[in-house]
Amino acid sequence: MKLILISLLMASSLIHAQDKAPLVITLTSVDKNIHLDSWQISGSAVTPEKPDWSITKKTLHGGKQEGVDLITVDNGKLSFSVIPTRGMSLLNARMDDIYLGWDSPVKEVVHPQYIRLEDRGGLGWLEGFNEWMVRCGLESTGHPGTDSFINNVGDEATMDLTLHGKIGNIPASEVEVIIERVPPHRIRIRGRVDERMFYGPKLEIQTEVSTTPGSASVRISDTITNRGDDPQEFQILYHANYGPPLLEEGAQFVGPVKKVIPFNDHASESIDSYSIYKRPTAGFTEQVYCMTPLADYDGRTTIGLVNRSKNKGISMKFSIQQLPFITLWKNTNSEGEGYVTGLEPGTNFPNNRRIERKFGRVPKLDSGQSHHAEIDFTILKGNKAVGGLIDQIQKIQRRAQPVIETKPENKD
Amino acid sequence: MKLILISLLMASSLIHAQDKAPLVITLTSVDKNIHLDSWQISGSAVTPEKPDWSITKKTLHGGKQEGVDLITVDNGKLSFSVIPTRGMSLLNARMDDIYLGWDSPVKEVVHPQYIRLEDRGGLGWLEGFNEWMVRCGLESTGHPGTDSFINNVGDEATMDLTLHGKIGNIPASEVEVIIERVPPHRIRIRGRVDERMFYGPKLEIQTEVSTTPGSASVRISDTITNRGDDPQEFQILYHANYGPPLLEEGAQFVGPVKKVIPFNDHASESIDSYSIYKRPTAGFTEQVYCMTPLADYDGRTTIGLVNRSKNKGISMKFSIQQLPFITLWKNTNSEGEGYVTGLEPGTNFPNNRRIERKFGRVPKLDSGQSHHAEIDFTILKGNKAVGGLIDQIQKIQRRAQPVIETKPENKD
Amino acid sequence: MKLILISLLMASSLIHAQDKAPLVITLTSVDKNIHLDSWQISGSAVTPEKPDWSITKKTLHGGKQEGVDLITVDNGKLSFSVIPTRGMSLLNARMDDIYLGWDSPVKEVVHPQYIRLEDRGGLGWLEGFNEWMVRCGLESTGHPGTDSFINNVGDEATMDLTLHGKIGNIPASEVEVIIERVPPHRIRIRGRVDERMFYGPKLEIQTEVSTTPGSASVRISDTITNRGDDPQEFQILYHANYGPPLLEEGAQFVGPVKKVIPFNDHASESIDSYSIYKRPTAGFTEQVYCMTPLADYDGRTTIGLVNRSKNKGISMKFSIQQLPFITLWKNTNSEGEGYVTGLEPGTNFPNNRRIERKFGRVPKLDSGQSHHAEIDFTILKGNKAVGGLIDQIQKIQRRAQPVIETKPENKD
Repeated sequence: MKLILISLLMASSLIHAQDKAPLVITLTSVDKNIHLDSWQISGSAVTPEKPDWSITKKTLHGGKQEGVDLITVDNGKLSFSVIPTRGMSLLNARMDDIYLGWDSPVKEVVHPQYIRLEDRGGLGWLEGFNEWMVRCGLESTGHPGTDSFINNVGDEATMDLTLHGKIGNIPASEVEVIIERVPPHRIRIRGRVDERMFYGPKLEIQTEVSTTPGSASVRISDTITNRGDDPQEFQILYHANYGPPLLEEGAQFVGPVKKVIPFNDHASESIDSYSIYKRPTAGFTEQVYCMTPLADYDGRTTIGLVNRSKNKGISMKFSIQQLPFITLWKNTNSEGEGYVTGLEPGTNFPNNRRIERKFGRVPKLDSGQSHHAEIDFTILKGNKAVGGLIDQIQKIQRRAQPVIETKPENKD
Repeated sequence: MKLILISLLMASSLIHAQDKAPLVITLTSVDKNIHLDSWQISGSAVTPEKPDWSITKKTLHGGKQEGVDLITVDNGKLSFSVIPTRGMSLLNARMDDIYLGWDSPVKEVVHPQYIRLEDRGGLGWLEGFNEWMVRCGLESTGHPGTDSFINNVGDEATMDLTLHGKIGNIPASEVEVIIERVPPHRIRIRGRVDERMFYGPKLEIQTEVSTTPGSASVRISDTITNRGDDPQEFQILYHANYGPPLLEEGAQFVGPVKKVIPFNDHASESIDSYSIYKRPTAGFTEQVYCMTPLADYDGRTTIGLVNRSKNKGISMKFSIQQLPFITLWKNTNSEGEGYVTGLEPGTNFPNNRRIERKFGRVPKLDSGQSHHAEIDFTILKGNKAVGGLIDQIQKIQRRAQPVIETKPENKD
Repeated sequence: MKLILISLLMASSLIHAQDKAPLVITLTSVDKNIHLDSWQISGSAVTPEKPDWSITKKTLHGGKQEGVDLITVDNGKLSFSVIPTRGMSLLNARMDDIYLGWDSPVKEVVHPQYIRLEDRGGLGWLEGFNEWMVRCGLESTGHPGTDSFINNVGDEATMDLTLHGKIGNIPASEVEVIIERVPPHRIRIRGRVDERMFYGPKLEIQTEVSTTPGSASVRISDTITNRGDDPQEFQILYHANYGPPLLEEGAQFVGPVKKVIPFNDHASESIDSYSIYKRPTAGFTEQVYCMTPLADYDGRTTIGLVNRSKNKGISMKFSIQQLPFITLWKNTNSEGEGYVTGLEPGTNFPNNRRIERKFGRVPKLDSGQSHHAEIDFTILKGNKAVGGLIDQIQKIQRRAQPVIETKPENKD
């Protein structure tokens, strides 16, 4: 019956191939009671003038990944994979010899049914952590620990927040592929993920990841909406993670910064070299830097990671109205433990929400109100492309001298 | 293979169509290793003289409801849906313009694999709460909090009970459809749900929800049995929830009461209007009233909810030997937060079990002993039907003056 | 597609039937994205000279066992079942009228998605406990309770360990059937189970359970490897459980012991009869004895359980280098509560890890280092076979007088 469904969809879409309306295919839908186990489409059938792309949806098997959905988009130059079952996270991306993602000790794409967020003192999230880009949120994004909330009888009660929140372990309710029939034929993977409960948040995130055939870029474009009637706090943090080949000894974080503050005393010790990476180092303990970025005149900023030879890099461009804070997570541990860095634009830093609230970094949405955020990721290949990024950042940095704090914020 | 199974079942049942033995169809069975993804039957094939009913079993897809079973019974006049995957809860019912159920902020029929009961200080149950009627129990039914138990080494230890217990998030082990071939052709959906563990409760509930073609009633008829060798505490509470059109400003709880006690100080403040409902009210905090019902000479009582115009209502009839306590949960919050009331007959009130035990409201079952409970739900349409309910209740109420307490029980 | 896969595998294997290389069939594989819902093979197709064996893989349905894999091997004389979904545990074994396993109050083969290990003060493991042999481990094997660990920011933090660890509730990532074409045609079921997380253990266990056609023995042969770069603590305990017919009044634990220590004061009371079993006894609280076994000159020891008439028994043979400690768990409670005993060779006793660490019983693996353990289980039928076991044990026991302690270890 599922195969019939696909055929019908394809037939109906081909009939309208002349139309200029985008081709829309539903892969998963709570509303329509649809879930396709496998599916694929290629450019030749939809955009004959740009035939060299494809999209494949499959279901993963074995171990903790039994039943996990995976959508892979190949735009002809760059390919990336999205995980609807894990909150529309991006597993990885690849263009020639440049790989976005990292080699986590977690080897499977773990189904949320196996994640117990409260495990290990609230660090259970780490049993599934291996994505290139995972969203943290939506009720909270930070470290585990106790925070207060109003319970069902109207009393202030306490709850144990868990690391990085729930959204990365909630399966998407509606997943669509949308292909523009007009140039540049943008290919969009849309997924709505609901973080809803009674007597709690009613937050929804409409995620979109898109690219155009032949491009070196991937765009994330998300809208978070408070579907409850009461005002609701929220947080989001885009945990974008990179290992080799971008990360290596001498690789560098680049970005125009207004201020950098070490997350804790351990990070303070290396504040002078906060933007430079070490080789894989056994026993390395994570160092985290909290940054306020500088933006260009249009309110947008660009950050990135570049390798030592400055011939491979990734740039991330976004608005500082949408994502005013950046967390730089350096975890240059040995390879088997996870050699990785995270460039993490967000509405806040990853302290426990009770600390972020104290510093005014827990935004609220009124009923029906939305928060939109967009990040353009571009893979940079060759010294010229990387040099362009560095020039662009230096130009923005000229607007102000960076302030480098040597002590963490006073969190007590 | 599953389709073959269905065909065989159907064939064997049609051969015996002349028999008067009821038609029994197994939808799920641990014993027989059966689980049908989809199935349906219509009255014309089984009871040609009463052809206008049908039963449909389907599997839900997408988001947190991927893989959830749903059985819908349409008796020709009234339809209702049962969720085997969620402890045989009743999702909703409908007859013409009368809907039983409510519009919860939780929009999907959540698979138990996504429920972490211990979440949010023991309120995780609320992430799946959207049914018309969900059973709370069986080990405990009340508020989260610490209670003591005897652990594996024979010591008294403590455990954190979670809101409303586990039974609503345990999938049924045996599910059967049973159709009586003799008038009035009662249609029964039976499901056995096991709440069993080693060094813990070995409780089983044999649930049954039934109706007859063309009727405005649904009957729940359950038997809880202690399958362990040692005596075992248990609790059950039938959390029946109603939103519009029954619930509206001026709607009213009706029922013959011996005593009403507010659950807490906040409920005390509105004790004078405990039976009357407000319009959807932003910022409303739940008010809960604990009632001891009066019964008629046959030991049965009838309670209900009627709309303002007294032309739409629901009645719930049951024995006070079986269900001696009623909890009235008023949650007339704004619609987006959940505008709903619960009429909840039970063996106890929804305090934490340690409090209920103190008040003698935690019954025990000896080895092999059962507790049976039955509730008849009837949809009332028109002023005459609603008036009949009110008359009936007033007649019972004449047996004693209600005692309305203004202060909660002393729970310390 | 799955059926095609099987056919192809079969075809390719039959072509090479003349070869002496073993026949290898993949049932589940993360690497190859394979999961077979059902499969079977019989000896006649592979080893015509030894045709009387078969292997069947099926998927269980209904209740909490929906989707659980079960592999049953029948060697022509003895049959046993393996549960890939539950960490390759062994559900039971049978030879004629001798059954290995027990009648747990948990009747289904529970899918890990329904197990919340942290439940009931860390005793959630007990909701799925009904196997003949379940491995406890790998990060810890003991009682619930707080232990310290190093968290993501390099600080010492605390976590609540849960009873018997995680490995029994992790699904296998790679499952293979391997059949030797050369006599004695050993049949192996291999499954790799990963207990991996970021900022935590990266332990892998390659399990193997095997038998030969017509034999009365089953061999477990496991290798645990630390796949992280940092040294890693680990523990393993083989929780082998027996009910009737081996367990009965007057049944006896047999084994050559260097030292026996009661686990707690309650066990102390019955230290004199520690090796003798009672009839099913209502209200019996578990008694646990911690033993250091004596080994033969080859470093191997043999323990077992024999019935009262000494005509039915099980022997377990293993190396005390690999498994230096034995826990004897006596739970001769009434049948409905679980009449069972566990003979549990391990790297340690089942105290909380923090206590075991104090006594030096938490081994560590360097990066890439492995720990191998093998146990041969043999069913003994008739007085002669049982007498042979007893003789063998007495011979080893002659090497030293057993020390029977009357007080538990000082665990504070």
